[in-house]
Amino acid sequence: MFFKVKTPEEVLESLKGFGPVGAETIPISETLDRVLNREIVCEEDMPGFSRSSMDGYAVRSKDTFGASDSLPAFLELAGEVVMGREPEGSVDQGKAMRISTGGMIPEGADAVVMLEYCNSVDEKTIEVSRTVAPLENVIGKGDDFRKGDVIFKKGTVLRPQDIGLLAGLGMQKISVYQKPKVGIISTGDEVIPIDQKPGPGQVRDINSYTLSAFCLQAGAVPVNMGLCKDNFEEMREKAASVLDTCDTVWISGGSSVGVRDMTVKVLESFEGMELLVHGIAISPGKPTIIARIGRKAVFGLPGHVASAMVVAEIFLNPFLAGLAGKAFAFGNVHQSLQAVLERNVESASGRDDYIRVKLRERGGRLFAEPVFGKSGLISTLVEADGLVKIDRNREGLYKGQAVSVMLFRPFEKEE
Amino acid sequence: MFFKVKTPEEVLESLKGFGPVGAETIPISETLDRVLNREIVCEEDMPGFSRSSMDGYAVRSKDTFGASDSLPAFLELAGEVVMGREPEGSVDQGKAMRISTGGMIPEGADAVVMLEYCNSVDEKTIEVSRTVAPLENVIGKGDDFRKGDVIFKKGTVLRPQDIGLLAGLGMQKISVYQKPKVGIISTGDEVIPIDQKPGPGQVRDINSYTLSAFCLQAGAVPVNMGLCKDNFEEMREKAASVLDTCDTVWISGGSSVGVRDMTVKVLESFEGMELLVHGIAISPGKPTIIARIGRKAVFGLPGHVASAMVVAEIFLNPFLAGLAGKAFAFGNVHQSLQAVLERNVESASGRDDYIRVKLRERGGRLFAEPVFGKSGLISTLVEADGLVKIDRNREGLYKGQAVSVMLFRPFEKEE
Repeated sequence: MFFKVKTPEEVLESLKGFGPVGAETIPISETLDRVLNREIVCEEDMPGFSRSSMDGYAVRSKDTFGASDSLPAFLELAGEVVMGREPEGSVDQGKAMRISTGGMIPEGADAVVMLEYCNSVDEKTIEVSRTVAPLENVIGKGDDFRKGDVIFKKGTVLRPQDIGLLAGLGMQKISVYQKPKVGIISTGDEVIPIDQKPGPGQVRDINSYTLSAFCLQAGAVPVNMGLCKDNFEEMREKAASVLDTCDTVWISGGSSVGVRDMTVKVLESFEGMELLVHGIAISPGKPTIIARIGRKAVFGLPGHVASAMVVAEIFLNPFLAGLAGKAFAFGNVHQSLQAVLERNVESASGRDDYIRVKLRERGGRLFAEPVFGKSGLISTLVEADGLVKIDRNREGLYKGQAVSVMLFRPFEKEE
Repeated sequence: MFFKVKTPEEVLESLKGFGPVGAETIPISETLDRVLNREIVCEEDMPGFSRSSMDGYAVRSKDTFGASDSLPAFLELAGEVVMGREPEGSVDQGKAMRISTGGMIPEGADAVVMLEYCNSVDEKTIEVSRTVAPLENVIGKGDDFRKGDVIFKKGTVLRPQDIGLLAGLGMQKISVYQKPKVGIISTGDEVIPIDQKPGPGQVRDINSYTLSAFCLQAGAVPVNMGLCKDNFEEMREKAASVLDTCDTVWISGGSSVGVRDMTVKVLESFEGMELLVHGIAISPGKPTIIARIGRKAVFGLPGHVASAMVVAEIFLNPFLAGLAGKAFAFGNVHQSLQAVLERNVESASGRDDYIRVKLRERGGRLFAEPVFGKSGLISTLVEADGLVKIDRNREGLYKGQAVSVMLFRPFEKEE
């Protein structure tokens, strides 16, 4: 079978068919960064009554018209609004009621005069030195949301204030998409568990840990299946078991042609398997395999850790967002910063190059220094703050050029 | 006692004295976003042996000098390097050994010729049509890190690749700062638990949930102490209990002058209490109180949820980063995007104004639409994507002006 290397755009397109996963109902205190699997409609007006947004006096705004320092309005004190209770009595013409921030606006009143514009004349009378407009310093019933309003769309990723709103509406539990479960298999006869001392030719398992943490960062649940020898039977057995229990399978390792071929053979042994991608026109990351088995995507990721991470940043991020049911899964999920490139970088045409860069601030400007080095070196990732893309139609980038840096995480500069 | 309203810079300065919290040792699989409490020194060369970064033949580079398509070099096949094992034999002059990506470079060899430049002539001989330089396609022993290298500084926040490196070095557990524990008390006679139906004048507890989720987002552990009436004894008792068990206390509510005064009185009742801040020159968020009790900071946050969130974004973010031991706690921890302001916004001078804005993309440009509304409305936060600062020396911002938007979270646009 012959497979043409796919463009990144083709690969992203082929990943859009997956997900979302199932739903679960959880307490709202656990819903940060979780994704709504249905729209939420407001079931009551919020707030449910008109409230004061200031400390002051609830009044009829008409009674203050024309009031000023030199010509204050005199109003009769008709009591005080107690917090958390319905006001006792109402504000009739010429009257005022003391009210605190958050207090319920009494009947008859339509505005609040701030405390600093009022003076006590005697126990029964205040003078008001300022005109207030109707609804001034008042949060009206339903000003936040009205009964029937759609407050969140399906696919919304919940932030602290969104959770606050759910709390305000009395929703104790809510239905969200589950977190996607990612089965991770690390292959390679040379790879050993991290608690062992490598003998000659052996290295510890870096990729499982890097990819697991990447999953956590993306809001997914990594299921670390441990190591797998370069052996058809063992890999097939592991893959089958992960396919049963996880929403996607990531097989890492296999940078050598032999192992890559075996990975494809393992995938082909599953009924109805469809090979979607066998090679991507990017560097690093070209030797990536993507297959559909049933409704699940299986990835054969490059063994070189930097290659695997580039593939993860560019393709697995939006893929996981799609599995998680996020509304804008394939939108711009990367934070980017503009920086000035510090060196010329050459690039082969015909593929998108992703160079790792380190950011530095000098004189208030941000500079991006390419981190050169083989993609088998993890140090190149550890030293880098992000990636710069060199489009496949360009032959490189120039020193001094403005570039957009896709950040591995928000950039924190020294003060 | 008279307190001058402080500038945001003064407030940030006063928050630098707190933290970091204690340390704990945890498995590296749990260290994403955790902070190293000491530097990490590399205890072995990484990789521990020279490896091939390509599939091909391990050779003496000298033997390929001058080799080309028209004049290939002929080398004698001296076996194959088995993955994960020490090569059997060595590569003497005129010889080559088959090697896969990640395989150990055999003695005598100093380079690898890629498979595609080699042809099998017979069982014992290959022809090489390309010259390789010494170390070409070789990852040398210690190329990633050398024994004794400082690989991470104290205060580093761990990313997936950093955890991968720790795995590669065989570190199964590692010492990090604990997550700061934040005790949250929500006050107000009008506030009721979210599982209750509000009567007239009552509202459900929004702030505890918003602030708890904010803590989680910042990598802290919220300890939700529930509601507290506007009552000196009750508030003091709760505050005392939280001070015992948490690293900082946040008392939310008290937008009215009376409750704010009571919060100060409660704080003053603790021995050695030092009132650091009583009012900040920002809007919203002015009525913020910060005290030091022992070695802990206690915050009296505004009751209006939008005010509390602005204070959280501007001050509690770096404060928590400092408690967590992050190296650049008070650096630029916000992600910002440049956008074009869609409307004029006026601002009072003498205070930094933070307006909430909604982002939209049109024709490839990003626009920021101000979300107007009282700071008691949570809808203004829910509709907004971030904040735009209007410096206290400016009288406003103009429509069409470029502004920097501090994002509540990474902005995800529609495709």
